[in-house]
Amino acid sequence: MLDSALDTNNPLTIDLSTTYTTCRLHSVALATPLSEADMQIQAAQFASPGKWHLAHTSWFFDTFLLKPNDLSPTGFIGFDYLFNSYYESVGQRQAQANRGLISRPSLSEIMDYRHAVDDGIQTLLGTALTLDQINLIKLGINHEQQHQELFLTDILYHLSHNPLFPAYDAYANLNTHTEPSELEFIPFEGGLSYIGFDGSDFSYDNETPRHQHFLQPFKLANQLVTNANWINFIEDEDFNNPLLWLSDGWIAKQKENWQMPLYWHRTDLGYQTFSLKGLTALDMEAPVRHISYFEAEAYARWVGKRLPTEFEWEYALINDPSNQLKQTFNQLWQWTSSPYIGYPGFEVSEDAVGEYNGKFMNGQYVLKGSSFATALYHSRVSYRNFFYPHLRWQFCGLRLAE
Amino acid sequence: MLDSALDTNNPLTIDLSTTYTTCRLHSVALATPLSEADMQIQAAQFASPGKWHLAHTSWFFDTFLLKPNDLSPTGFIGFDYLFNSYYESVGQRQAQANRGLISRPSLSEIMDYRHAVDDGIQTLLGTALTLDQINLIKLGINHEQQHQELFLTDILYHLSHNPLFPAYDAYANLNTHTEPSELEFIPFEGGLSYIGFDGSDFSYDNETPRHQHFLQPFKLANQLVTNANWINFIEDEDFNNPLLWLSDGWIAKQKENWQMPLYWHRTDLGYQTFSLKGLTALDMEAPVRHISYFEAEAYARWVGKRLPTEFEWEYALINDPSNQLKQTFNQLWQWTSSPYIGYPGFEVSEDAVGEYNGKFMNGQYVLKGSSFATALYHSRVSYRNFFYPHLRWQFCGLRLAE
Amino acid sequence: MLDSALDTNNPLTIDLSTTYTTCRLHSVALATPLSEADMQIQAAQFASPGKWHLAHTSWFFDTFLLKPNDLSPTGFIGFDYLFNSYYESVGQRQAQANRGLISRPSLSEIMDYRHAVDDGIQTLLGTALTLDQINLIKLGINHEQQHQELFLTDILYHLSHNPLFPAYDAYANLNTHTEPSELEFIPFEGGLSYIGFDGSDFSYDNETPRHQHFLQPFKLANQLVTNANWINFIEDEDFNNPLLWLSDGWIAKQKENWQMPLYWHRTDLGYQTFSLKGLTALDMEAPVRHISYFEAEAYARWVGKRLPTEFEWEYALINDPSNQLKQTFNQLWQWTSSPYIGYPGFEVSEDAVGEYNGKFMNGQYVLKGSSFATALYHSRVSYRNFFYPHLRWQFCGLRLAE
Amino acid sequence: MLDSALDTNNPLTIDLSTTYTTCRLHSVALATPLSEADMQIQAAQFASPGKWHLAHTSWFFDTFLLKPNDLSPTGFIGFDYLFNSYYESVGQRQAQANRGLISRPSLSEIMDYRHAVDDGIQTLLGTALTLDQINLIKLGINHEQQHQELFLTDILYHLSHNPLFPAYDAYANLNTHTEPSELEFIPFEGGLSYIGFDGSDFSYDNETPRHQHFLQPFKLANQLVTNANWINFIEDEDFNNPLLWLSDGWIAKQKENWQMPLYWHRTDLGYQTFSLKGLTALDMEAPVRHISYFEAEAYARWVGKRLPTEFEWEYALINDPSNQLKQTFNQLWQWTSSPYIGYPGFEVSEDAVGEYNGKFMNGQYVLKGSSFATALYHSRVSYRNFFYPHLRWQFCGLRLAE
Repeated sequence: MLDSALDTNNPLTIDLSTTYTTCRLHSVALATPLSEADMQIQAAQFASPGKWHLAHTSWFFDTFLLKPNDLSPTGFIGFDYLFNSYYESVGQRQAQANRGLISRPSLSEIMDYRHAVDDGIQTLLGTALTLDQINLIKLGINHEQQHQELFLTDILYHLSHNPLFPAYDAYANLNTHTEPSELEFIPFEGGLSYIGFDGSDFSYDNETPRHQHFLQPFKLANQLVTNANWINFIEDEDFNNPLLWLSDGWIAKQKENWQMPLYWHRTDLGYQTFSLKGLTALDMEAPVRHISYFEAEAYARWVGKRLPTEFEWEYALINDPSNQLKQTFNQLWQWTSSPYIGYPGFEVSEDAVGEYNGKFMNGQYVLKGSSFATALYHSRVSYRNFFYPHLRWQFCGLRLAE
Repeated sequence: MLDSALDTNNPLTIDLSTTYTTCRLHSVALATPLSEADMQIQAAQFASPGKWHLAHTSWFFDTFLLKPNDLSPTGFIGFDYLFNSYYESVGQRQAQANRGLISRPSLSEIMDYRHAVDDGIQTLLGTALTLDQINLIKLGINHEQQHQELFLTDILYHLSHNPLFPAYDAYANLNTHTEPSELEFIPFEGGLSYIGFDGSDFSYDNETPRHQHFLQPFKLANQLVTNANWINFIEDEDFNNPLLWLSDGWIAKQKENWQMPLYWHRTDLGYQTFSLKGLTALDMEAPVRHISYFEAEAYARWVGKRLPTEFEWEYALINDPSNQLKQTFNQLWQWTSSPYIGYPGFEVSEDAVGEYNGKFMNGQYVLKGSSFATALYHSRVSYRNFFYPHLRWQFCGLRLAE
Repeated sequence: MLDSALDTNNPLTIDLSTTYTTCRLHSVALATPLSEADMQIQAAQFASPGKWHLAHTSWFFDTFLLKPNDLSPTGFIGFDYLFNSYYESVGQRQAQANRGLISRPSLSEIMDYRHAVDDGIQTLLGTALTLDQINLIKLGINHEQQHQELFLTDILYHLSHNPLFPAYDAYANLNTHTEPSELEFIPFEGGLSYIGFDGSDFSYDNETPRHQHFLQPFKLANQLVTNANWINFIEDEDFNNPLLWLSDGWIAKQKENWQMPLYWHRTDLGYQTFSLKGLTALDMEAPVRHISYFEAEAYARWVGKRLPTEFEWEYALINDPSNQLKQTFNQLWQWTSSPYIGYPGFEVSEDAVGEYNGKFMNGQYVLKGSSFATALYHSRVSYRNFFYPHLRWQFCGLRLAE
Repeated sequence: MLDSALDTNNPLTIDLSTTYTTCRLHSVALATPLSEADMQIQAAQFASPGKWHLAHTSWFFDTFLLKPNDLSPTGFIGFDYLFNSYYESVGQRQAQANRGLISRPSLSEIMDYRHAVDDGIQTLLGTALTLDQINLIKLGINHEQQHQELFLTDILYHLSHNPLFPAYDAYANLNTHTEPSELEFIPFEGGLSYIGFDGSDFSYDNETPRHQHFLQPFKLANQLVTNANWINFIEDEDFNNPLLWLSDGWIAKQKENWQMPLYWHRTDLGYQTFSLKGLTALDMEAPVRHISYFEAEAYARWVGKRLPTEFEWEYALINDPSNQLKQTFNQLWQWTSSPYIGYPGFEVSEDAVGEYNGKFMNGQYVLKGSSFATALYHSRVSYRNFFYPHLRWQFCGLRLAE
């Protein structure tokens, strides 16, 4: 679901084997601070256990590369069923809500599986690869990098249900703070512009076909909305005024009783927030995070602005020669007002990999940029992340337009 | 929610008073075949009782025109609360799901209220009206015309829950059948085109601002998909293949066990369908109706086509000098692949009437054209109807593109 | 579900035909103050529309007496399906939750059905009846008398959802008030006693077999708990103390947010209550009504008492020669602490009528006495009414024991 | 919730300290075959994780014995909140459904806690204990023994959600099979009898007060219903006949689609069952287990018998001098037809320990006997286990009466 560009976009990358290995080791490194029990728990259907991420990313290589080449490791009974995520074409799969109940295979057996898959891929890499195979390996690496971000997103969500507020890593770098500058709205001309991936390296199918799109003139904020901004919003009486909200947003707000961003706590010591570092005081100048599309949209209306479209965001990044736009990548994903649909001419490919993006093109919104948890070299202007408008557990914030 | 152009778009209209009266009488005429009990029932939250439609359309004139001019009729206690629909700014309102429980005021009291409101409006029409007042009356008429279609849509839904299959009117004209022609895909050039309302008469805010949109070349089917076409689909084994469906569509299909369009019954006599005429054999050449967006989208994929965007549909209607496109209006609303969002520059107006369209701009899809139940003179190319993708009780069908 | 003794227990009854006619006319009389719309609405699955009660009681005579004797009236298509309640053995039936959607057959057709059934029964009564037939007619009359009470119970519930608080009948006699006397606890000896029906006339199967039951000495309150008593309870801080409640009761209280009896409203004018007379001030000396078993049980614990068992209640009524017990019948049904199960040796009969009582013997509690809405001559000491412990829409109150 | 007699009922027990230590070690021994992940998972709200059982049983000693005597170990932050089960009077507690999310404290910290509590209790045992303290320690031991059975019940349930069918212990002794004898119904005289605990040692409050109860003559089956018997039932067409079921039972059967006992699988190899030993072929002569009250009750009706009351069961055990009743203890808990309510004169004690049994006296049924998983010396005739009639995850079966 998450998407990001491959290390292979990195000009320094020497060969696919090194890229593969680097990626695979990084997933394991992310699990270092966690116990077997931490890796097992699942607090909601939409968030998977840490252990499952380690297994599923290996299943992907196994299913789409090793099995067709008779290199699939033996002795891992039931793994094809247990660690399939949503690939209907590949066969049956474990119910998503019950992933947290799979105490066996154990974490140690999952690690054995990872190593066996790695051996298989290295064997394959030693042969003469077809272009299709190369592309599948690149896709597998990108897929795993997406799960590296999801791994952190999900672990934070799981741990947040523990009233002891345990830290994932007290020294984690969350990239939460940037020297503040004054809020400015940068003007852009628009016109008939090209949108979509134009590189020669890896991209996802949903970034294509590159096509022309007509844009009115617009302005884009030079920075993200901050926690201090957000407190003004939630402490204003209009925060609970239904006229400020989309109808579906108001229903979601009432149902889930949104009074603050996810993970915030109002305490005797003021606002605190739970993050991968544990529970800490809120940094007022840091960009607000863990807000839904509905909240972002209402905020924009409250300040008399709006969210940008994905096309404005992409166009602005390309046409910002003086680098006036700050906090574009590696901070937070940024909600846009664009429903996630296929570009003109987009077609869902017919094989299993075709299930990757196309079938989710309903009811979600595009997010642009990338977050502190996004893999290195994984950020590009054409990248289209997407989530449902009521979800808040992602590392996401907002940038205003007018 | 439904939208349609005012009779005032009709060049034959002489004055607003006649238009008003004609519209009001038509609502009452629609109720003629129904008993007080028929007018009371409510089979789902999204469908309102017939009695409620008669009251709510009067409430609209009362609230936005009579009350501000001290012309509101007295003696109708609680009507302001009971017959508000979703206007948060106007005050509290009866829970939508409980509309069917309001046995009092009686139908006869509702009719008294209608007459009292009509008297008030005629009084107002006898004074020197401001342009704002004229526009509000036009909006009220358009609003009531929308509810005339909804009245039939909802009554059909309510009656469908009765195992005796009672007809609303055995002689109703459903405009179900058109002499069939051969399916053709008409080519259009596209390019940078203007989209949106450009008339001088009435339109809804969501049809504006008129703006430029860039279109690739495309083809549009000359006619709607038929019942015969649809039977091929549902009797094909791939109908139950998840790969054919959007992920959310597959979930909806499983949850509601969609095997046929709404109101179809598989009987010993073959397929039958329940309509305003009661239960009858299916006309194979008639356009298929009562299918959700998800089903329409899957059908298009199944035949190797796609749904048109709202922009393609509008552009094609305008650029079809030889009238090759059939069944464009007054047959069935036609699903497009366009999520319902505001046009560039669209702003929600800040008064109560501003709640009319803007706050529903999430998660729905645009439908173009109009149905047999749509009010006369209410069809225009810029009209944007919208519904959630899982709903099927509207009079809607589909036209393919490629 | 409700149960009551037949008029035939009345020594003044001359013949079955008169008893039948009197009963049937009374049902129709109860509907006099109501419109067709009032008779149509259904506010919850557990409460049926007024129209349905009129039809179902006729269906009972039709199904169990006329059909087997080829006297069933013709021309009432679908009535056997629509107006079956829970008799699985008789065939399929309309979903209970959707009874309120059956606008057709109309009320007038239902009345035609009633008359046709009455004609059939009178024809049958003119023949030589078997004892089984006589007993079935008696059962049908008792069944209809139960539904007469349910009719009022349900109508009150339906109308309570109307924010205008419409009265069923502003002059209804609710028997709410009795000259207060001082609360006393009357002692009883207990010992090995006989429990269950011992008459020669009509009773329900659940009142038999008469059997011996051993009772410890106990005391029973001479009167019911009053509204004034109850206000002390709900205004006490322990009302919200979970230790006072059964575990399931606490869950129900939290889920439904019970702060007062059903139909009470806290207003600027003090407590008001909605009844068949509309909204009126609370009579402090009247017995509290519309409380669940869970609330009754918690109240008893709060005052350091308990609820009586059904055996104590029945024994006390029989052994109260000086009539110290007040408000025993025709006021309110009285919760006992006895789960509703079969008496020793009870067997469910195997025909459809056997579905009457036996299959409900799980999870409910016995209530003794009768209410102001119970049919005349319908009260007897062995009578066992029963409801689930969370339900509050019945005319029920409580009497303490210790 | 589960209840069982203390080792101290064992005449061989020398002192309380040894009994305490034996009990505590046994809990840890039960966890031996399980990983930290196995101990973490929770497949339903009603079943707790293994880790939680180890912590909660220690919390009981800590809360009711160590804290009041200033012996509570320090450094176990949040344990009082996390490992409280349902004791409202002791303070807030972790939501039951979320116990499986508490990955921290780790299993190793839980073990540290157990040892620290053990040290505290041994210190306390070295002082001059009051009678209250001795009784509380006995209660704590009985409480932990109940949780030992629940530990196995819950682990089986959790593991059953793993499609790999992992065994808890392939060599576990499930006491499933007994040399079959011929089914006989043993007659008993009944009469006025004493019911309830009359010993001088430990019992639960719900086994008292001992009181007189009048019993009709009855017969009790000499053995439990077998798997072979049950297959006859589920393969009979009447298994799906609603007339055979209690109304609530039929609803539960439909909702959960009961076609077989819990843990049974119909495979190409015939019926198989999942147990603590993993997936194995069904032993036809073994008593059927994992059936709900509703199923047991329907079975009894199907064979023309009934379930015994708890009073009949207890009376029969006492009055069976020739030991004709088989499989009475240490096989399976046996459903009775008796709703779980307090004996005459029963009062809920007012301290926290009083929450132990009394507040669950609604909607459940009494089970008699004990299962293979019940602690040694924990079986006695007055013991009253209890569960809701729709639950099936306990080790329970049935014995017929007539």
